[in-house]
Amino acid sequence: MKPVKKIINEPQHVVSEMVDGLVRSYPQYLEKIPDTEAMVRSDKDSMTGKVGIVSGGGSGHEPSHAGFVGKGMLSAAVAGQVFTSPTPDQIYAAIKAADHGKGVFLVIKNYSGDVMNFDMAKDLAELDDIKVKSIIVDDDIAVENSLYTQGRRGVAGTVLMHKLVGAAADQGATLEEIEQLAQSALANIKTIAVALSAATVPEVGKPGFTLADDEIEYGVGIHSEPGYRREKIKTSKKLVTELLEKIEKNQPLKSDHQYAVLVNGMGATPLMEQYIFSHDLLDQLEDRQIKPVFMKVGNYMTSIEMAGVSLTIFDLVDNKWLEYLNYPVETIAW
Amino acid sequence: MKPVKKIINEPQHVVSEMVDGLVRSYPQYLEKIPDTEAMVRSDKDSMTGKVGIVSGGGSGHEPSHAGFVGKGMLSAAVAGQVFTSPTPDQIYAAIKAADHGKGVFLVIKNYSGDVMNFDMAKDLAELDDIKVKSIIVDDDIAVENSLYTQGRRGVAGTVLMHKLVGAAADQGATLEEIEQLAQSALANIKTIAVALSAATVPEVGKPGFTLADDEIEYGVGIHSEPGYRREKIKTSKKLVTELLEKIEKNQPLKSDHQYAVLVNGMGATPLMEQYIFSHDLLDQLEDRQIKPVFMKVGNYMTSIEMAGVSLTIFDLVDNKWLEYLNYPVETIAW
Repeated sequence: MKPVKKIINEPQHVVSEMVDGLVRSYPQYLEKIPDTEAMVRSDKDSMTGKVGIVSGGGSGHEPSHAGFVGKGMLSAAVAGQVFTSPTPDQIYAAIKAADHGKGVFLVIKNYSGDVMNFDMAKDLAELDDIKVKSIIVDDDIAVENSLYTQGRRGVAGTVLMHKLVGAAADQGATLEEIEQLAQSALANIKTIAVALSAATVPEVGKPGFTLADDEIEYGVGIHSEPGYRREKIKTSKKLVTELLEKIEKNQPLKSDHQYAVLVNGMGATPLMEQYIFSHDLLDQLEDRQIKPVFMKVGNYMTSIEMAGVSLTIFDLVDNKWLEYLNYPVETIAW
Repeated sequence: MKPVKKIINEPQHVVSEMVDGLVRSYPQYLEKIPDTEAMVRSDKDSMTGKVGIVSGGGSGHEPSHAGFVGKGMLSAAVAGQVFTSPTPDQIYAAIKAADHGKGVFLVIKNYSGDVMNFDMAKDLAELDDIKVKSIIVDDDIAVENSLYTQGRRGVAGTVLMHKLVGAAADQGATLEEIEQLAQSALANIKTIAVALSAATVPEVGKPGFTLADDEIEYGVGIHSEPGYRREKIKTSKKLVTELLEKIEKNQPLKSDHQYAVLVNGMGATPLMEQYIFSHDLLDQLEDRQIKPVFMKVGNYMTSIEMAGVSLTIFDLVDNKWLEYLNYPVETIAW
C-alpha cells in the first residue's frame, strides 16, 4: 500500500499524537487525563459546585469534541480511535474527572457503539455514586437507520447541544434541569448534509466512498455513511433549496419563530464556499420571512477531509435557548 | 470546461456573494461599506479616539482578513477578487471608514499589486487629511522574490501582526507608536509552508500547480507560487524538521528567548493533522529547550482548498508583544 498523503507519522498513532498535540498546544484549556485519550478542563476551579458535561466519540470530527471543552461548555471530552467509539473505561475516566458532586450529564451522538459504551461508563460511574444522566443526539434527518446507527445519526447539531447544556451547567442548573433542557431542545434541532468528496481514515488509506468528478451526494453521514441521493454538482442556490426543503419536511419553518443556524464545513470545504452557501441560505430563509437570530459558519463537526457542508436549523421555541447560545465561553473552537 | 466542483454559483460572483454571506451571517461584527467589497466593524463606538487598523488583499485566504475585524484587532478589511489585489478606491473607502481622527495604519502583505494599490489609497486618504502609515509584511522565508512579489512574500505571520497592532490601537497607542511596534515585531516573525495539494481558483477551474499522489512541495506560497523543493511525502516529524531548520537558518532559536507559534492550516488539511504536526513541533522545540509561551493551531491564512500547513515562529524579544497577543478581542476567527 502506498503511503497515504497526510501529515501524520504511523497511521495507528494518529489519535494519541493528535491528543498530545492538542493538550500541549492549549494547556490553558485542556489537560489530558493520565493513561487515556480523554481531556478535561484545566480551569478545574470553575467547575466547582456545577454539573459536569461530558461528550466525545470517535476522532476525525475535530474541533469536536475537545475544541469545545472549557468554561461555559464541556467539562471533559473523550477521543476514540478514528470513527470508532471511545472505550467505556476512558469515558468513565472523563466522567470522574468532570464530577464535582452535582452529577454528570453525557452528550452522546446516536451511533450504536457510542450509545453502548457511554451506557457502560454510566453504569460504572453509578457504582461510584456519581449521578449520571444523558441525551442521545439524533439530529440528522437524512435517513432513518444507517451504518452504525439505529434511528437517526447524531451530527453537527450536537455542537449546539454542547453549547446549551454547557451554559445551563455554568449557570448552576441541576442535573434534572439539564436533562429536561436537552430533551426539549433536541426535538427542535435538525441537520442535513451534502458531500462533494469523501474522507480517508488514515489506517484504511483510501476514501470511504467514491464520487465522480462532477458528482455530489445528499445526506452523507460524518463517517462516510451513505446518503439518500447522488446527482451532478449543482449551484450553491440549488444545494440550499434541496437541504432546506428536506428540513422543512421534518420541521416546518415559520415566520413567527426564531431560529439559530449552523452552517458547518465538513473539513476540506473552504470558508469562501461556506459563506456563499450562507448567503443563498439567508436569501431563501428571507423568502419565508425568516431572519435567523443566531448564526455560525465554519468547521465545527468535520469528517476528516471530506468536502461538503451540513445545515443545522434550531427552532428556538424557548427564549432561554438563545440566551444559552450567546452565553460567553472560553474554548478553543466555539 | 466542466463545472468546477465547488459550492458556488457563477465563478465570477464568488467574492461578492462571499462578502454578502459573511456580513449577513455576522452582523454583530461586520458591516459592508456600500458599493464595495470592504467591511468595517459594526461596533463603531469602540473605535472612537483610536487609530484605525486596515488590512486586506486578494480573497481566497479566509478567515483572513475579515474574520479578524472586531474590537482589539482590525477596524476594516478589504476583499479583492480571488488572489487579486483590491482596488485603490475600495482600500480608500476602508481607510475612510476606519478613520476616527487619529489616523489609520495599513497592514499590507508583500505582493506587488497590494503594495501599489494600498499606496495609491494612502495617497488618496492623505489628500483628505487622513494620516496614514503602513507596514509591508514579508514573513515568508521560503524564497527571495517570487511570482507577484519583490523580496519575500507576506503570509500567515500577517495575522499575528494584525493581533499586535490591533491590541496596541485598542489600548490607545498613537499612529507613530503603532508603526514602531509593527516594524520591530516584523523583524522577528518568520513563516515557512509545505503543500500537499494545490488550490483551484473558481474562475480558472483547475489547480494552480500539480503534485503527484505521493509528492509534496516545500515553500509554496498562498497563491500557488512555487516553493523551493519537491519530494516524496514524508512523516510529520520530518516535515517539522525541514521547516524548523529552514526557519533556524534565518532566525536562530534560543533557549533563553520566548516564542509565539502559529501552526496554520492551508484550507483542506484537517485539524487532526495540524495537531499531530504541532505535537512533533513541540517535541523538536523541546530538544532545543524551548517551550512556546503562546500557540495557535488552525486555519488562519488559507489558500482556498490547498492542503498543507505553514509554521510561523515569532521571537518575542519585547515582553509587551506577548501581552498584545493575549489581549482580548471580539472577532469571528481569532
